[in-house]
Amino acid sequence: MNFKIIFHTLGWVLNFEAACMLLPLICAVTYNEPHSLTFIACMAICLAAGVLLTFRTPKNKSIYAKEGFIIVALSWIALSIFGALPFVISGAIPSFIDAWFETVSGFTTTGATILSDIEVLPKSILFWRSFTHWIGGMGVLVFLVAILPLAGGSNLYLIKAESPGPSVSKLVPKIKSTAKILYGLYTLLSFAEVFFLLAGKIDLYEALTITFGTAGTGGFAVKNSSIAEYSPYIQNVITIFMILFGINFSVYYLLLIRRFKEAVHSDELKAYLIIIAASTAVICFNSRHLFASLPDAVRHSAFQVASIITTTGFATENFDKWPELSKTILVTLMFIGACAGSTGGGIKVSRIVILLKSISKELRITAHPKRIYKIKMNGRIIEHETVRSINVFLVAYATIYVASMLLISIDNFGFTTNFTAVAATINNVGPGLELVGPTQNFSIFSPLSKLVLVFDMLAGRLEIFPLLILFSTYTWKK
Amino acid sequence: MNFKIIFHTLGWVLNFEAACMLLPLICAVTYNEPHSLTFIACMAICLAAGVLLTFRTPKNKSIYAKEGFIIVALSWIALSIFGALPFVISGAIPSFIDAWFETVSGFTTTGATILSDIEVLPKSILFWRSFTHWIGGMGVLVFLVAILPLAGGSNLYLIKAESPGPSVSKLVPKIKSTAKILYGLYTLLSFAEVFFLLAGKIDLYEALTITFGTAGTGGFAVKNSSIAEYSPYIQNVITIFMILFGINFSVYYLLLIRRFKEAVHSDELKAYLIIIAASTAVICFNSRHLFASLPDAVRHSAFQVASIITTTGFATENFDKWPELSKTILVTLMFIGACAGSTGGGIKVSRIVILLKSISKELRITAHPKRIYKIKMNGRIIEHETVRSINVFLVAYATIYVASMLLISIDNFGFTTNFTAVAATINNVGPGLELVGPTQNFSIFSPLSKLVLVFDMLAGRLEIFPLLILFSTYTWKK
Repeated sequence: MNFKIIFHTLGWVLNFEAACMLLPLICAVTYNEPHSLTFIACMAICLAAGVLLTFRTPKNKSIYAKEGFIIVALSWIALSIFGALPFVISGAIPSFIDAWFETVSGFTTTGATILSDIEVLPKSILFWRSFTHWIGGMGVLVFLVAILPLAGGSNLYLIKAESPGPSVSKLVPKIKSTAKILYGLYTLLSFAEVFFLLAGKIDLYEALTITFGTAGTGGFAVKNSSIAEYSPYIQNVITIFMILFGINFSVYYLLLIRRFKEAVHSDELKAYLIIIAASTAVICFNSRHLFASLPDAVRHSAFQVASIITTTGFATENFDKWPELSKTILVTLMFIGACAGSTGGGIKVSRIVILLKSISKELRITAHPKRIYKIKMNGRIIEHETVRSINVFLVAYATIYVASMLLISIDNFGFTTNFTAVAATINNVGPGLELVGPTQNFSIFSPLSKLVLVFDMLAGRLEIFPLLILFSTYTWKK
Repeated sequence: MNFKIIFHTLGWVLNFEAACMLLPLICAVTYNEPHSLTFIACMAICLAAGVLLTFRTPKNKSIYAKEGFIIVALSWIALSIFGALPFVISGAIPSFIDAWFETVSGFTTTGATILSDIEVLPKSILFWRSFTHWIGGMGVLVFLVAILPLAGGSNLYLIKAESPGPSVSKLVPKIKSTAKILYGLYTLLSFAEVFFLLAGKIDLYEALTITFGTAGTGGFAVKNSSIAEYSPYIQNVITIFMILFGINFSVYYLLLIRRFKEAVHSDELKAYLIIIAASTAVICFNSRHLFASLPDAVRHSAFQVASIITTTGFATENFDKWPELSKTILVTLMFIGACAGSTGGGIKVSRIVILLKSISKELRITAHPKRIYKIKMNGRIIEHETVRSINVFLVAYATIYVASMLLISIDNFGFTTNFTAVAATINNVGPGLELVGPTQNFSIFSPLSKLVLVFDMLAGRLEIFPLLILFSTYTWKK
């Protein structure tokens, strides 16, 4: 185990976090809030630790799969612990566990909150809270790989461990350039959303925080009613951008370099859009009676479907009051999640498509045992190794799910609350049903349950294995 | 597709069913019930169809995987449709869909009922209802293979398609002898239970019906309160026999031929007993305050754990009122299910153990990428093909689960009701929580939902693929 490179990279993560805090500091200064000092103090703490760890550059810069997973797991834990400091030091969230929950929820782009009244918090603190979504959305190590002369050529393992989806597609041969392109596209799309939101006559502060929540598919808003109070125009803009940020970014790259045919010929994209359209239609039909007009019903249905499948978690409506079929569809969408290589969470559409194709392969083989069938995506054969790793992922996912359900059920809340609390955290969605519904929050849970859900959020964002490998005895046995 | 052998075997299934109805007929005659005629009429109908189909013996007796699955799927559908006739003709359950639900629930050893008052039904009808559990428990085709000179040597596919578990272990080289041994052990254990129950001073009728419910891990009782009114002795006897019938029958065979070491050296058996002990301990601790004494708490906890993990579904207590942790444990046990090669349902302990080992293999590989690891059970390497088929099973299972949840949610009952209704049927358990809790029943559901749950019960008992292959277009395309 190359400990030196692990700590070195961790140091850069903290330096990076200090730099990120510049933005909320500017916000505090702009609004004349007394919290400028909070952010300066937090930046100093991050930098102190960061500089200490990055002081010496290790000679052996090699990062293998094992180190890659461990760096990613530790980075995200460190990031969220240091990122919780502004909440604690400012007194906005005095309890450390609560503040950590909130920060993990931010970085993992979950958007589950322990706050019952968001609007009493200072603007700069809320800005930081929303900004964590944007940072976590595309990934911290992806960013570091893009800008730092980090670990030579072997940092593919970092990207692999941090990026969501069954397989990482390098857009260009160099991993550093791939990372740059990803962050470029991410920034570009974010600017576009800010532009369209500003056109809807909301102020820059709101446009930025909403964009952070949309781009990272996070879901933290700056209003207690989430997105309910905004105009239909703003809501529709958010719907469209949620869907856009849930698409595999390689599609945008292909569009950019004018390989249109390849961009459009994606089984995952097709499935993603069909699921969104079908779910919206059924929910609209099923919940029609709750809305004043058909356009209203379409708008709210589409918003909620986009919000849940992309695992954003914004709400324009208390969907906990919708009919059971609509709610069950939304819960199903939580698990499906967005496309691989997007900022969204969940199991990912491509995994679901490959798994469904594995059933159909089985049925074909039974019908015609002498023929050979292969699972294909976008016309290309899926390697056996990919299918196997998806299956292992699913089993680990289910195991963590059940263990979490058992642990949080000690708090003695209802089955639906517990089931959707785990679904909303492990899939990085945010709101669930009943006691964790869109108008409720996660403050009801005991510290133990909050820690379990913190684990679930991190496990969900990092797709489980980095955390499992960090805590596995096999990793540390000689 | 060898249609002739399919229909021929179906005919024998109906002849067999006619023979089975002799027992409730004897019961009706014994208790002087007017339903003797009902059973004679039903036997005549079964025999008429059966004799018609078996009249000509097909020359080509070969049964391949495809035919095996289709015969099993059609047999179980036919069996339950004809088995519903006594309920309809006697007027005990006038609605055909309800009667079919009840019969499928019987043969699949689910034990979910649409009846709110069981005790008003004639004894012979209740006898038939319980007897379907015993018939379905070890399997109909296993029985036919044991006694009929059916399809030469190729009826391994029939046993494979009907028997639960990831792989079928032939006890002896000849499949016919294996089937005979299985039924022999099944009958022997059943007699033992009847004996111990009679020792508890209940009458033969009750001893028989309870044994049918236990042996098949079914769960239909002849009292509205299930097993709650019986003495602690009777309850404990049932607990022990439920656990015994949930064990892989090959263990008993090994014991019988005095290969004790092999019998005890079973990873699945160890896991099964550990889960039972641990669950009982936690539930006992968690629900202790609800019981008058510690022995009471232990008895009810052990009974409920045994009843649910073996997917029997008998109840001595309304566990829907237990604390959430206890309920969540029980729901988890529904999914785990009993051992492969037993009469129990669920995913099966061996599948769970193999899947958990696949996670640990992944963690080992990441830690030491240059070594080679294999998944082992009972000291033997598990073939890649077995792991793959377990994974496909799991995906198909999850897909049917989600589809069922969506379809029955149209009825607009709560999430917990729907979730546990599907869990209780696809795992062949019987009772769930809330509106389908142990003191409730499945009559609330619409005909559509009942059909969905009928499909789930059959899919669960036959481990999904026979039904999928029957309805797959690939099977029927030339």
